[in-house]
Amino acid sequence: MGAAEASRCGTSIPRVPGRTSSEWELVTDWMGVVADLSGTAGLLGFDRETLMPPAGAEGRARQLGTLAALHHREIVREDAGEALAALAADGELDDDARAALRLATRERDRAMRVPEALVREISEACSRCVSAWADARAADDFGAYAGPLAQVVALKRCEAEAIGIGDEPYDALLDAYEPGARAAELVPVFADLRARLTPLVAEASRAPETILPVREWAEDGQMALAREIAEMVGFDMSAGLIARSAHPFTGSPHRGDVRFTTRLSPQSPLGSISAVMHELGHALYEQGFPASANRTPVYDAPSLGAHESQSRFWENQIGRTAAFWERLEPAMRRVFPTAMSGIDAALLHRASRVVRPSEIRVEADEVTYNLHIVLRFQIELALVRGDLDVVDLPGAFSDGMQELLGIRPPTDALGAMQDIHWADGLFGYFPTYTLGNLYAAQLAEAAERELGDLEHAIAEGRFAQILGFMRERVHRHGARMPTRDLMRAATGAELGPDALIAHLERSYITPG
Amino acid sequence: MGAAEASRCGTSIPRVPGRTSSEWELVTDWMGVVADLSGTAGLLGFDRETLMPPAGAEGRARQLGTLAALHHREIVREDAGEALAALAADGELDDDARAALRLATRERDRAMRVPEALVREISEACSRCVSAWADARAADDFGAYAGPLAQVVALKRCEAEAIGIGDEPYDALLDAYEPGARAAELVPVFADLRARLTPLVAEASRAPETILPVREWAEDGQMALAREIAEMVGFDMSAGLIARSAHPFTGSPHRGDVRFTTRLSPQSPLGSISAVMHELGHALYEQGFPASANRTPVYDAPSLGAHESQSRFWENQIGRTAAFWERLEPAMRRVFPTAMSGIDAALLHRASRVVRPSEIRVEADEVTYNLHIVLRFQIELALVRGDLDVVDLPGAFSDGMQELLGIRPPTDALGAMQDIHWADGLFGYFPTYTLGNLYAAQLAEAAERELGDLEHAIAEGRFAQILGFMRERVHRHGARMPTRDLMRAATGAELGPDALIAHLERSYITPG
Repeated sequence: MGAAEASRCGTSIPRVPGRTSSEWELVTDWMGVVADLSGTAGLLGFDRETLMPPAGAEGRARQLGTLAALHHREIVREDAGEALAALAADGELDDDARAALRLATRERDRAMRVPEALVREISEACSRCVSAWADARAADDFGAYAGPLAQVVALKRCEAEAIGIGDEPYDALLDAYEPGARAAELVPVFADLRARLTPLVAEASRAPETILPVREWAEDGQMALAREIAEMVGFDMSAGLIARSAHPFTGSPHRGDVRFTTRLSPQSPLGSISAVMHELGHALYEQGFPASANRTPVYDAPSLGAHESQSRFWENQIGRTAAFWERLEPAMRRVFPTAMSGIDAALLHRASRVVRPSEIRVEADEVTYNLHIVLRFQIELALVRGDLDVVDLPGAFSDGMQELLGIRPPTDALGAMQDIHWADGLFGYFPTYTLGNLYAAQLAEAAERELGDLEHAIAEGRFAQILGFMRERVHRHGARMPTRDLMRAATGAELGPDALIAHLERSYITPG
Repeated sequence: MGAAEASRCGTSIPRVPGRTSSEWELVTDWMGVVADLSGTAGLLGFDRETLMPPAGAEGRARQLGTLAALHHREIVREDAGEALAALAADGELDDDARAALRLATRERDRAMRVPEALVREISEACSRCVSAWADARAADDFGAYAGPLAQVVALKRCEAEAIGIGDEPYDALLDAYEPGARAAELVPVFADLRARLTPLVAEASRAPETILPVREWAEDGQMALAREIAEMVGFDMSAGLIARSAHPFTGSPHRGDVRFTTRLSPQSPLGSISAVMHELGHALYEQGFPASANRTPVYDAPSLGAHESQSRFWENQIGRTAAFWERLEPAMRRVFPTAMSGIDAALLHRASRVVRPSEIRVEADEVTYNLHIVLRFQIELALVRGDLDVVDLPGAFSDGMQELLGIRPPTDALGAMQDIHWADGLFGYFPTYTLGNLYAAQLAEAAERELGDLEHAIAEGRFAQILGFMRERVHRHGARMPTRDLMRAATGAELGPDALIAHLERSYITPG
């Protein structure tokens, strides 16, 4: 290969048109890479829960660890930090660009404040604790879980102190999931909610319990029904898919590909239908993010509470109405001609809304659910504040269940050890479920003001109109505004339990 | 959050036990990250071909582009280069470590030699050319493809010159897929093969054509059959899975997770069965890589030719025997009780081995197949050498088909434009298919010497023994040795067409 040939290669190939190498371009590329890495990890997780063979667990964990390390390395890149700083004073940028910069700076700052050694320690402690939790739960032996959990609590406090957001360590943890939220503001909201839920639970539990007759509900049919429901409410199947997993979830590796899963039980179709409605809320939200903000932090929900407002809206405000079951009944009869014999929409509706205090949060009904969260919020706040020792957790949990729901878990496996969250270091996560419920009820009230009676809209199959309302008020804004501003603008109301309590009373308390 | 608390965080948390930070550790971590990134890209590709909704195409392409860039950035890391150089003189390392270093250095050197701008230009030119190819093929308009293809050829020549391996530019391209192989060595092997195949094709084509009667072969049944075949030959389903795609392929995101796909046609089960046997060869190989070399370049095949030796072995040396169809017949009758009526193992066997010259390489039978490759090798060598202009490609291709197979493609879509490889810049790739066929036949001869008559072993269902032979002679070595050394050690023979020709004569030429 002579020099002449080599030089022809160097000169004769047309160059790609030169792009400006401004700070904005660097930041845009950087945000894109960060988004691509997050989405990639999401797809690896989706595959793990839906397809991966069992022997792949260790390799997948390592691969996800590598991606997390690369994600961290990318986020803290010095040139990105310098470009962000330079752009902070740039008056030429539009609102979207400024929002993206604000969110990216926030994410980078959080990452910069936690030393890499601590990140690794937390990750390893959580892995160990999740394993210990799984074993301890199976053996109903809280003692074997207490040590690893205490270490996680200690490390998460250290993380919170390193981040230094808010007025107390818990705030820094909460802020990761619900930016801007503070414990001191949530405490009175949750206290108010608790006070008003307690009599409501007592009253609603008195209604007779409706159970579907025992039939065989084929899993293929349940998946087909999931697709029918998705298309009915407006999910774009050309830009998404539905799969099956043990625990339902929603994820999106990138724009144009939004996936959710449902759980299937051949004994009853109700669990899958409510899972589908819940995940559809998340998935519709993801399909509605602003296209112009793709591969920036604006292409996201502003918080988990905002995300959960969408899942709870479709699951509870839409999916538990009589009108919804009337719309769904013909499809169910088509898919399950035998199992549906003697079952009508009214029976399905009643069976979908039985209220009974029970031990397990994820199986709780719409009314008791938030009391489970009140308890968890109370306990995790005390743990992080140092007011509660891990060894005293089971007692505090059982006492709380007794106090809030009038039942005492027969075992710690059905009590303090039922959720994976704390083992995995997710302190500050639980409250976002109830925030979602509160916002969902407020959004439903706002939707009724705009569209008229929701039950009527559902009865007429005007799902596109309901979705249009959410697209306009919530989805299209992505993460541009903090959640409380977004929700105030969308609903005209401040965060509070009024709308949720009114909804529950209307739905579950028979007048007179 | 006071300083006292922060300092408690800094001191009271037990540190992870200190690891040595030797060069070897750095290189091990670095090889692991490179492997994780390759595996991740592989999973994204698998998902794209099997699950991804259509609207995800653009986002996925971008995500894969980001991963490719991170992969490149990781490979060329300077500290890795320094550590590799320092370790080259380390006498303490064992054979596996030395092999890993040699392969990693090779990969890094290749990556270092090609300027990043050229990498990007090639990637963009290939993307454009693949699009142009798809459109041009659909319209049977070679003219619309010629320009983009000429650019790809020019850029690949530049890449070859930058890499500078071998005696001519083509060698550097070939070396990417078949390390150590050189055009000058392949030319006589392919010429010999061609000379001996031509009369064989003429003879074998004279046998009457057996076609299965037209029936309905349910796709679910074909997938169930694929799983039965996989388990029959020894594929570990707890460490792998089977999916469906338009074009069958095998991939593994990481150890413990090896996936392959099959194509399904409701008209006939034969296409899927041969695809399953082919991909199973690749997949069994991946499941047999040496565990101790996980996340290093030794945990791989030494070349595409070696990989293809495994797929061709199971597809042709095993999957086209009378004994194989006798073993499979009961399962087929169980899965397809109706469609199988009146069809026996002998008919299936005859239908699986019809020899007829035809236009399309991927549909070619075992005997004519290698003549398709002979033609492609000849043409791509001429293109890269500059002996053939892209504008003259269709004519050269059709003339070659006429000469080698006695048929003239009625259109360029069925001729020079049938494969995606050249559009995608894959020059030097085609010969590895035939190398795989040559090695597969040599391995079958070696297996017979060790296990006795293969047909007999298959008839007795001794698949574990056959797989054990491959594990011992080929799989467990990973990429430790170059392919020719590996195959010489496994078969006792030098690369050549004798074994393949003998196998084809035995299988397709009726004595007398």
